[in-house]
Amino acid sequence: MAVYKAPLKDINFVLNEVLDVSSLAKLPGYQDATPDVIQAILEEAAKLCENVLFPLNRSGDEEGCTYENGVVRTPKGFKHAYDMFREGGWTAMTCAAEYGGQGLPATVGFAVQEMFTASNQAFAMYPGLSHGAYEALARHGSDELKKKYLPKLTDGTWTGTMCLTEPHCGTDLGMLRTKAELQADGSYSITGTKIFISAGEHDLAENILHLVLARLPDAPGGTKGISLFLVPKFIPKEDGSVGGRNGIRCGAIEHKMGIKANATCVMNLDGAKGWLVGELNKGMPAMFVMMNAARLGVGMQGLGIAETSYQSAVAYARDRIQGRSLTGPKNANGPADPIIVHPDVRRMLMIQKSFTEAARALSLWVGMLIDEAHSHPDAAKREAADDLVQMLTPIIKAHFTDMGSECANLAVQTYGGHGFIRENGVEQFVRDARITQLYEGTNGIQALDLIGRKLPMKGGQAAQRLLGEMSGFVAQHKADDKMKEFVEPLEKALGRVQDAALFVMQHAMKNHDEAGAAATDLLRLMALTAMTFMWGRIAVAAHKGLAAGNDNAFYEAKLNTARFYIARVLPQTTSLNHQIKAGAATLMALPAEAF
Amino acid sequence: MAVYKAPLKDINFVLNEVLDVSSLAKLPGYQDATPDVIQAILEEAAKLCENVLFPLNRSGDEEGCTYENGVVRTPKGFKHAYDMFREGGWTAMTCAAEYGGQGLPATVGFAVQEMFTASNQAFAMYPGLSHGAYEALARHGSDELKKKYLPKLTDGTWTGTMCLTEPHCGTDLGMLRTKAELQADGSYSITGTKIFISAGEHDLAENILHLVLARLPDAPGGTKGISLFLVPKFIPKEDGSVGGRNGIRCGAIEHKMGIKANATCVMNLDGAKGWLVGELNKGMPAMFVMMNAARLGVGMQGLGIAETSYQSAVAYARDRIQGRSLTGPKNANGPADPIIVHPDVRRMLMIQKSFTEAARALSLWVGMLIDEAHSHPDAAKREAADDLVQMLTPIIKAHFTDMGSECANLAVQTYGGHGFIRENGVEQFVRDARITQLYEGTNGIQALDLIGRKLPMKGGQAAQRLLGEMSGFVAQHKADDKMKEFVEPLEKALGRVQDAALFVMQHAMKNHDEAGAAATDLLRLMALTAMTFMWGRIAVAAHKGLAAGNDNAFYEAKLNTARFYIARVLPQTTSLNHQIKAGAATLMALPAEAF
Repeated sequence: MAVYKAPLKDINFVLNEVLDVSSLAKLPGYQDATPDVIQAILEEAAKLCENVLFPLNRSGDEEGCTYENGVVRTPKGFKHAYDMFREGGWTAMTCAAEYGGQGLPATVGFAVQEMFTASNQAFAMYPGLSHGAYEALARHGSDELKKKYLPKLTDGTWTGTMCLTEPHCGTDLGMLRTKAELQADGSYSITGTKIFISAGEHDLAENILHLVLARLPDAPGGTKGISLFLVPKFIPKEDGSVGGRNGIRCGAIEHKMGIKANATCVMNLDGAKGWLVGELNKGMPAMFVMMNAARLGVGMQGLGIAETSYQSAVAYARDRIQGRSLTGPKNANGPADPIIVHPDVRRMLMIQKSFTEAARALSLWVGMLIDEAHSHPDAAKREAADDLVQMLTPIIKAHFTDMGSECANLAVQTYGGHGFIRENGVEQFVRDARITQLYEGTNGIQALDLIGRKLPMKGGQAAQRLLGEMSGFVAQHKADDKMKEFVEPLEKALGRVQDAALFVMQHAMKNHDEAGAAATDLLRLMALTAMTFMWGRIAVAAHKGLAAGNDNAFYEAKLNTARFYIARVLPQTTSLNHQIKAGAATLMALPAEAF
Repeated sequence: MAVYKAPLKDINFVLNEVLDVSSLAKLPGYQDATPDVIQAILEEAAKLCENVLFPLNRSGDEEGCTYENGVVRTPKGFKHAYDMFREGGWTAMTCAAEYGGQGLPATVGFAVQEMFTASNQAFAMYPGLSHGAYEALARHGSDELKKKYLPKLTDGTWTGTMCLTEPHCGTDLGMLRTKAELQADGSYSITGTKIFISAGEHDLAENILHLVLARLPDAPGGTKGISLFLVPKFIPKEDGSVGGRNGIRCGAIEHKMGIKANATCVMNLDGAKGWLVGELNKGMPAMFVMMNAARLGVGMQGLGIAETSYQSAVAYARDRIQGRSLTGPKNANGPADPIIVHPDVRRMLMIQKSFTEAARALSLWVGMLIDEAHSHPDAAKREAADDLVQMLTPIIKAHFTDMGSECANLAVQTYGGHGFIRENGVEQFVRDARITQLYEGTNGIQALDLIGRKLPMKGGQAAQRLLGEMSGFVAQHKADDKMKEFVEPLEKALGRVQDAALFVMQHAMKNHDEAGAAATDLLRLMALTAMTFMWGRIAVAAHKGLAAGNDNAFYEAKLNTARFYIARVLPQTTSLNHQIKAGAATLMALPAEAF
């Protein structure tokens, strides 16, 4: 009973009316990415999602991946869907033209990524991880490696992975033990065990390229002695065809709560042949560039699941009749009213709606900032855009995935007991969404990244830029009577952010635990404020649309949803501010044995 | 890796130091329930939970129930465990002596119910539902029915169910269609389909007694035409042994997100023989008495899962080493510190700890109120106690189960990626806990029960009693300097409750949607305030313990946990107050088609 239609109208509204997507085609290299071309791409993606990927979502969950003697089989239909995906050019979309890619901007990538993940998160992870490997190689690989491997990742005949985690270390990669030893031919012999390797083994592609973090015997301890290697499943022959089997094998797949159609592999490396990517002992910074991109991708998964959850909840709330409206029958000829008449059901739907629409705007804004940071001719503009992307990355990863889980849970709650039944499809969203709060750095780690790295970055310059964007918006629209209801609450929320951040800065200098104690609440406080900023920008566009006089119902709904967010979600910032300023003392008071 | 030890020390602290469990033995009928006897019972229950029920929790989830040709098999070990449960007298514990029961007070029942559900929710539901059937029959059945069936439910050789829901109606039972027709012998012939019947069919007991809601052909429409019937799977012979198969059969079991070891059945009644329980057309009020008891039972499931989640998270946080404390290494000789040093990990553990301990106190207080309401010689005291139970029932059901899910999710989050792996055991808690927010009335329905029935009940008398208990506590301890830190925040929270309730009362008269719009937030606001009240009472007991001078670490931990709750959880009441006073407008503004 779960449903999904790609929200093309809303994506186009954000791209064309909230943001100015036509500016992309003015950036060098993106001349072809005109609004018309983008729209055509989105429509094609929507068809693939609605007709191919979404119908495989529940069957993929029920069947799961299977493992036998080192071989992993994906669920029925996945290979066919992947072939269609690859042949449709979706793996090549944002890859560089020199490797066969279409060179489209990140903004377009974000828009389709939302749809892919909304329709089938487990499937979307296969090409998603490949693209991560593409980026790592494209940025850090030698020309030889790039020439040999990038065309294969671009056309999707080969896929990729990131091999970081080991049984004893995830967050704390400084402890990793996988060993790499230099061989006479310049390659490395790599031995160790990696776990939680998404798409580590499968039957979708003829080869799999693993990007593996490992340590040379004489490398310094901790994170400064880690290097990055490319380890293919099959070593390519000179002609680019698949050659001999390499010593990296899948030892098992995990049995998981969700994303069951994506193989999560234990990978055993036993003298596997690998090639250095980037510089020796600089594997962590290389991986970190990647990781930031991956974190935004995970944030998009949160948005995607929230959207499917929302749509499914709305469909059920319109269809299911049960009880009567508190203000008198709305379906007087039927035996009961549809449950969408009940204020508490609407509360659940509006939380979802007011999240997804502002989150979409925020994600596409970040997409455009990434494109500016990459391609703007003015170095200062590139830096400014990059600062904003850096700041927003942990916020998007953590908040979007927390809300993805919340929206999935709200969909289940809207269905009542029927939501608990697998056949009805929505409980899967809860199980699938749950991983997004954990992988690519738990959301607690995102909060520490925000408070420990991003806020102090460049002496606070990036943070000031983000706050400046928001306070600039307030200043610009403050005098506008019809924007007052959106701008004043934003201004107050900004005040709470500054107040809380100041508190933390003052206290964390004396006691670092104060930063850790405030981190999660501060991230959420900033996220809610950034979302309110997006609602302000959406309101500007909606007022413009109303003034133009067409599709009034659409624009009125935007304004009303913005009002809901401000009345019913933004007040959380008050509590968060209080909680942050309560400090670390009550968290740290108990000795470990008193728990 | 999930762990569970029955929290006997804490239960005893609540019973003996926060409450006065010795007063139970002064109530008529409960003379034998002395503190010593109660403690001995709790210790036996703890052994059963730790040694028998908890070890079957994960295997039960993995294996699930199976259905074939009308027969349901429970997972390996469940039959043996049920036999031990039954033979140990646990089914008989709170049943009346005249039917072979031990006649113990509800307070003891609550204490062991927490442990049963904490160790194995899916298992605990089988005897839990039987006890629901016992209560319904004991209160409303004829002497003949009681004599025939209650001894079997008491000794657990037969089990029971409640058959309410039909495919097209759950919340709105007024629409139910199952038909009952009077037969010449005074029995009824019942035909219809019931769904979501927990324990509707299984292999644990020789007979199953279904309490079925159905409608006579000439009955009034809506809820006033519903009657309650007893429909046994096998019709008992005169000698009490099992006779012929009745026309009620399990047509399928549901495939669910969780509680997989408890069979959720579709029950088809095809001219099944049933006997009226209570009066014709008075099935709903009879069922509602039951339902209130069942709702408290579901609340206890929330607490139980929160406790197991908490214990499992603590064990992992002490054991898993990853990263270093922000204030310098705490495990300098090891490669990293245990993650319990990190403030954000402690934040997650403290949310769980500060919930479970106050929730335990609240639940056992309600247990004692139930016993007073049942047995106190003074009618006024009985009524006062019952008022409090009525008020607290939706609060406990909704808040405990919301927090059960939150604590289970926090356990997963503490485990990081490892929490997503089935083998590690904690993701099951998330899946099992999820149903508790849905069944026995969704938590949205609980909120409507609170705002629509309980608050206005007896002209607000019950509400005033609950607020009076709390403001009385404030008045009593306000002058005590060492209680100030607990009493002042409680007083402020009470002010927010009154402020919000006044707003709703004033506005809901004009527009009933205002009540529905405020319901969920008001329930949570009242729940957080009631929990703070319990922390105040715990603090009084802790100060008394400290003054006595033994086990200081235990009492200091209580005070510090209370401080955490006030500093880091209670501030939510500020936001909730704002959200409630934002009113219904933004929820109801959108036309249904604009979603």
